[in-house]
Amino acid sequence: MPTKKLINDPADVIEEMLEGILAAHPNHLKQLPESRRSIVAVDGPRPGKVGLVIGGGSGHEPTFLGFVGKGLADAAAIGNVFASPPPDPILECAKAASGGTGVLFMYGNYAGDVMNFDMAAEMAAMDDIDVRTVLSTDDVAIEDKARRRGVAGNFFIFKAAGAACDKMLSFDDCERIARKANDHTFTMGVALAPCSLPQTLKPNFELGPDEMEVGMGIHGEPGVFRGPMQTADAVTDQLLDRILAEMQPARGDKVAVLVNSLGATPLMELYLINRRVKQRLDDLGIAIHRTWVGNYCTSMEMAGMSITLHHLDGELTEMLEHPCDCAMFRAG
Amino acid sequence: MPTKKLINDPADVIEEMLEGILAAHPNHLKQLPESRRSIVAVDGPRPGKVGLVIGGGSGHEPTFLGFVGKGLADAAAIGNVFASPPPDPILECAKAASGGTGVLFMYGNYAGDVMNFDMAAEMAAMDDIDVRTVLSTDDVAIEDKARRRGVAGNFFIFKAAGAACDKMLSFDDCERIARKANDHTFTMGVALAPCSLPQTLKPNFELGPDEMEVGMGIHGEPGVFRGPMQTADAVTDQLLDRILAEMQPARGDKVAVLVNSLGATPLMELYLINRRVKQRLDDLGIAIHRTWVGNYCTSMEMAGMSITLHHLDGELTEMLEHPCDCAMFRAG
Repeated sequence: MPTKKLINDPADVIEEMLEGILAAHPNHLKQLPESRRSIVAVDGPRPGKVGLVIGGGSGHEPTFLGFVGKGLADAAAIGNVFASPPPDPILECAKAASGGTGVLFMYGNYAGDVMNFDMAAEMAAMDDIDVRTVLSTDDVAIEDKARRRGVAGNFFIFKAAGAACDKMLSFDDCERIARKANDHTFTMGVALAPCSLPQTLKPNFELGPDEMEVGMGIHGEPGVFRGPMQTADAVTDQLLDRILAEMQPARGDKVAVLVNSLGATPLMELYLINRRVKQRLDDLGIAIHRTWVGNYCTSMEMAGMSITLHHLDGELTEMLEHPCDCAMFRAG
Repeated sequence: MPTKKLINDPADVIEEMLEGILAAHPNHLKQLPESRRSIVAVDGPRPGKVGLVIGGGSGHEPTFLGFVGKGLADAAAIGNVFASPPPDPILECAKAASGGTGVLFMYGNYAGDVMNFDMAAEMAAMDDIDVRTVLSTDDVAIEDKARRRGVAGNFFIFKAAGAACDKMLSFDDCERIARKANDHTFTMGVALAPCSLPQTLKPNFELGPDEMEVGMGIHGEPGVFRGPMQTADAVTDQLLDRILAEMQPARGDKVAVLVNSLGATPLMELYLINRRVKQRLDDLGIAIHRTWVGNYCTSMEMAGMSITLHHLDGELTEMLEHPCDCAMFRAG
């Protein structure tokens, strides 16, 4: 069955979405006049602060624009649906975010993004902007760590880095904290039904009427297991087993939790899943510092969800609690 | 095609959802020990403050629990999916919310809710709690004002009332402001695809693969027009034409805007719709005070959206800006 979308000309979805976002959030976001795909924080860069530039394909809202604001990212480069932004808007973001002490590039580990952000970093170097890159790789569905993707865990990873930058820490410390946040963040998801691209309105993958796919990526990349639908508790256990095997928590450890909808899965189901997350963590003697539940990293109208655990230490807790002010959600 | 849901025993969805909500938001919400369907704010009622009790069927999350917190509602009574809570949990909410100066009952105008909240009000009177009721009736899809339903505009209506209560205004003033907020709030929606009830997993209405229904209610109640899908701009214009005809704004007037997803419609489409809302209001010389875009009053995984305009005057602006602290979203 084709997806219905409330859009106008499919060729205009991104420009029109950005127009609507800027209309809604004039106190938080502005567009660079000469680079419409570069969105910067109104209260953004300041002298001496390490700049934070994030970005990637559209279709994951509120990722990435939702993370732009005081105490978080200074700028986001916006690609087409599920496609990396080209180097130019990334470069313009770097210039806008630069406070003279270096700029961090942070984005999910996808080949197209790596290519374009790396090219923008080289261009920035010619403008005497020192860029360092920290990829997010929180999707533990993939065995090979080098191939892991960045998914909903960006929430915690960007938050930690944004706080470090906002606290005026050194470039070395900002980079170190960003890498630590990524190493301490573990996500796994399940897909129940596809989304469709605005241009085609065709589903981006096929799943049977009673099937789910565990570990599927946020663009429909293959997961680790396809099978019949299971109960919320059974699915949650599968995801948590993999996450906990990677995280290796000890009794008394502390985590932050994100239960994220891929788009169409409603809060009722997410909260029901959070109930099981709490039970499992309680059983293991792991303390929950704080929990977020909602649509944070979506694939347009895809049905499904992901669970993220952010393994806290004192420093990461401090970063998480540092205030931030973003348009589309609150954190910290 | 049956809907897939991440649930356990369908008979347990509400209890398990509430458990997950309380696990996620211990700093905002607590359950009355003797009445599990009565959820009250941790920072709730205080002596001399008019109490605010809201409630209704589940399946609309973050409505109603998302509105419980300091500066907004003191308590919410929680029904089964799309079904009114019975009188007992409403009564317990009234007792918990009572600060000795009266309790406002506010909820959408649905027959089942009216019956049960009225019964609870009578029971509260026997406990010497003075209850007054203000129904929300913001859905302008219905011609007859007495039959209008309460839908996403609850966001602004409850917000105004909650602020009045939090400011320790008199019972008369709290009631007057609540009524004014309702009279100044206008919503209209469009449905693209149904949701299903956990017990049956069957769609709650049928729409053809290229059809939409304008004015459909949040439980699938019939709308005013069913026809082929149209562009986002055309749909937005239809909804706004009806809303503006009711609201009768003058040039220079001020509104707050809510573009709300019914569940599965993603932010990309909502923001694109908000672009058109801004264009239309700009053309009419109506100032936008502030805009919210997201999932605020849903029908589980229903696809579609609604637009709400809250016609501001000085007093309603003050209520909207009054701080509040709720678990599931921020306002004011």
